[in-house]
Amino acid sequence: MAEKVNIIVFSGDLDKVLAAFNLALGAAAMEMKVTLFFTFWGLNVIRKDKKVSRTRGIMRKILSLVNRGGVRRLPLSRLNMGGLGRSMMKKLMEDSKIPSLEETIKMAQQMGVEFVACTTTMGMMGISREDLIPEVGRLAGVATYLGEATEGKINLFI
Amino acid sequence: MAEKVNIIVFSGDLDKVLAAFNLALGAAAMEMKVTLFFTFWGLNVIRKDKKVSRTRGIMRKILSLVNRGGVRRLPLSRLNMGGLGRSMMKKLMEDSKIPSLEETIKMAQQMGVEFVACTTTMGMMGISREDLIPEVGRLAGVATYLGEATEGKINLFI
Amino acid sequence: MAEKVNIIVFSGDLDKVLAAFNLALGAAAMEMKVTLFFTFWGLNVIRKDKKVSRTRGIMRKILSLVNRGGVRRLPLSRLNMGGLGRSMMKKLMEDSKIPSLEETIKMAQQMGVEFVACTTTMGMMGISREDLIPEVGRLAGVATYLGEATEGKINLFI
Repeated sequence: MAEKVNIIVFSGDLDKVLAAFNLALGAAAMEMKVTLFFTFWGLNVIRKDKKVSRTRGIMRKILSLVNRGGVRRLPLSRLNMGGLGRSMMKKLMEDSKIPSLEETIKMAQQMGVEFVACTTTMGMMGISREDLIPEVGRLAGVATYLGEATEGKINLFI
Repeated sequence: MAEKVNIIVFSGDLDKVLAAFNLALGAAAMEMKVTLFFTFWGLNVIRKDKKVSRTRGIMRKILSLVNRGGVRRLPLSRLNMGGLGRSMMKKLMEDSKIPSLEETIKMAQQMGVEFVACTTTMGMMGISREDLIPEVGRLAGVATYLGEATEGKINLFI
Repeated sequence: MAEKVNIIVFSGDLDKVLAAFNLALGAAAMEMKVTLFFTFWGLNVIRKDKKVSRTRGIMRKILSLVNRGGVRRLPLSRLNMGGLGRSMMKKLMEDSKIPSLEETIKMAQQMGVEFVACTTTMGMMGISREDLIPEVGRLAGVATYLGEATEGKINLFI
């Protein structure tokens, strides 16, 4: 039976997200069964890149303004420098022939990596199913994660 | 035998701490045996909310001033904006009928989640037993954690 | 057979790195087999402390300037305050008789902790073998990590 890898993608920082996908792609290439659980800021990775979300409530409206989704906007966990570090990172990735995060997401899905979005934090942040990219296969809560993680060989929180 | 879940709560950021407790409560509800190991900034989560700690040494005094304990003071890992993000997060939690961290801590203890405080970092940061909330069941070092983690089905570092 | 512990050291923050080494030393003392996989900012921990790296490309030159290696330069994940927090942390460590990170690295290697550097991020950041401290035993990619992690009792991402 294939080994199971479960990664909670809590962070929405480009560098951490890249690490998560690097692990996911590697594991899928080794024929492991990989599930990525996106929660909190990690939801930004699987959000469509659109102007402003039509969400209810003033607080969620503010949040949707300051915390824009879409992989092209993810900051770095260090040296972000108002987006300058992010641009630099992207240039370095190109130079090193590392595919962009957009391409990586597509590749991961084609290789069978499963994308799960956390319903609890979606509710809190006013994100609905239509706000998410089509690669997301399932919406689920903490019980689903825990059930799968008990069968995981490798469980990480990123 | 019940599955074991061991979470190191290193972070003192409200969002990460919420994620840790969400996992802990979920696992406890599924009758898993959950232990939270609080270390470094995570100690702020289990510190009483008092003015200034009577700690020895000028460095620890400064640290106790800039790094105040008590769950009501935890910042966010992103978009903290001098506490504004934190207030926004709390409002969003209320709107979504998510209990506050104070309530969550009480709930977790009632459901049998065990709270362990790391003695090494307590010593370094000048925190003593009396500075901690009564929900903390044990003080322990790294050997205790490692012993329990070798029996854990799910081991996370948050 | 000895239990295996695999820690991905993604962070280059002094406090998180200390937590990683504390776990590594504890596990080695309990005769577990410990491997630390340094990637991204974590590579700063195992970089020699030298002025400027002779790396190719303007982007990597800028990165090597703003992201200097060497354990004496690691910031804190919180309260860094332009290096003030870091100095404070070092003072607190001395007061608590906690060895410095330089000493800890030497100790870890003597106790058999294995240091692995991630080749993918080394390439991206323009870091070569000669830039790394001699304690690093192997250079490897994600497949090596995954292979070892499937045999790990404790797998953490820090």
